[in-house]
Amino acid sequence: MKDKLTVIKVGGGIIYDPIILDKFLVSFSKIKGYKLLVHGGGNITSNYLSRLGIQTEIVDGRRITNESTLDVAIMTYAGLINKTIVCKLQKYKCNSIGLSGVDCNLIKAVKRPINKIDYGLVGDITEINDVFLNTLLKSKVTPVICSLSHDGNGQIFNTNADTIASFLSIKLTKDFNVTLKYCFDKSGVLNDRNSLIKTINLSNYKNLINEKIISGGMIPKIENCFSALKQGVSNIFIGGNNVINNENYCTKLTLE
Amino acid sequence: MKDKLTVIKVGGGIIYDPIILDKFLVSFSKIKGYKLLVHGGGNITSNYLSRLGIQTEIVDGRRITNESTLDVAIMTYAGLINKTIVCKLQKYKCNSIGLSGVDCNLIKAVKRPINKIDYGLVGDITEINDVFLNTLLKSKVTPVICSLSHDGNGQIFNTNADTIASFLSIKLTKDFNVTLKYCFDKSGVLNDRNSLIKTINLSNYKNLINEKIISGGMIPKIENCFSALKQGVSNIFIGGNNVINNENYCTKLTLE
Repeated sequence: MKDKLTVIKVGGGIIYDPIILDKFLVSFSKIKGYKLLVHGGGNITSNYLSRLGIQTEIVDGRRITNESTLDVAIMTYAGLINKTIVCKLQKYKCNSIGLSGVDCNLIKAVKRPINKIDYGLVGDITEINDVFLNTLLKSKVTPVICSLSHDGNGQIFNTNADTIASFLSIKLTKDFNVTLKYCFDKSGVLNDRNSLIKTINLSNYKNLINEKIISGGMIPKIENCFSALKQGVSNIFIGGNNVINNENYCTKLTLE
Repeated sequence: MKDKLTVIKVGGGIIYDPIILDKFLVSFSKIKGYKLLVHGGGNITSNYLSRLGIQTEIVDGRRITNESTLDVAIMTYAGLINKTIVCKLQKYKCNSIGLSGVDCNLIKAVKRPINKIDYGLVGDITEINDVFLNTLLKSKVTPVICSLSHDGNGQIFNTNADTIASFLSIKLTKDFNVTLKYCFDKSGVLNDRNSLIKTINLSNYKNLINEKIISGGMIPKIENCFSALKQGVSNIFIGGNNVINNENYCTKLTLE
């Protein structure tokens, strides 16, 4: 039987508030067995972009990554946020290592092809170095991975953290029984009366989109989840800080 | 017989210029056998501090590290510079991993005691996780280490990169025959007529200080070197980009 691995993706809303982040990291450090954390940058990156007077173009709600934006993403994702998280996890006796996609060629990617919109320096994942992750996990080191990839030819890319969490989870099903949890600043996927949708499966998903209860950034997040379930990930949950300990008060994704 | 390990510390002057950095990394990637790179941030950090309007206090030529300064140091050292270097090394087929002192508790430190001057969030090294470095090196991964340490209790510190290079080298003499090279924007230690001093040993060092040929920041650099030689490091050189391939045109440090 494969060992259990918990992959957690933590969202920008939790990272931004030091007190909430700390509470999250205390819970994360207590997860039993193998675990891995994926994060982006969210508001901290936007905040530094604005302080540096770097204008960013937003198309269809997505930021276009130019060179200056990428530099700030690298500084905040791989620098400030990643090392702050790892340093706090060490305090909570969870031995961890901060990684980006360039380190040991963890995440290789190609520039997203231009199809109507040129998103700039954004990478679509082509390869994951799961052997390296497996070695770290088996030596009781917890990887903390930020949302950067590279092309192997000297170019770093911005890559969506949700997508990275999903790709890593799928790749690691080879060696582990994987549970994937998306942690953000709501208790899960909410309906139009702001109450929690406890289960989303392939059949009610279409209705939820038609009724516009699920829209915007939540659509690719859920598409990623279904794709991961189809490719062998055992369980997927979307929820708040509590989703780490309590799988009852959050949204569970299932195929059927 | 122990395997040879080359430890290189690269200075801010080389890091700041993308063309010179690239040339340096091409040479670095060609070093045969085990190798390890240590870097700080230098001008790139100062540049971002100034763009962000963060005032820094300089006492006796040393920057006082307050919380805002430390955040920018973490962003530039562990983020922008570290990942740019690792990404370029991957391009040159040198499989590398970017690390700070927090990752796997690589460098633990205590806040520098206040003795006349309070340097702020600056750490004095207490412990190096050489077992982890040894494991990486033996699996043919090249560590790229930035100049940050931590106290194990949630606080990151700024720590001098020269000192880190020297401490790591000493610690790794247990498993390797270590050569340490300091690479910066001059060809070595220069005398008052700007020509290269080929050898500095314990006896001519005192004269060089008395004659004020060696002064300022060069003094702790050379003290670090002597300390490392006394503790088992085999060879130490200070030079420019060329010192990687050519040990004849640089300054060699020896005890006798």
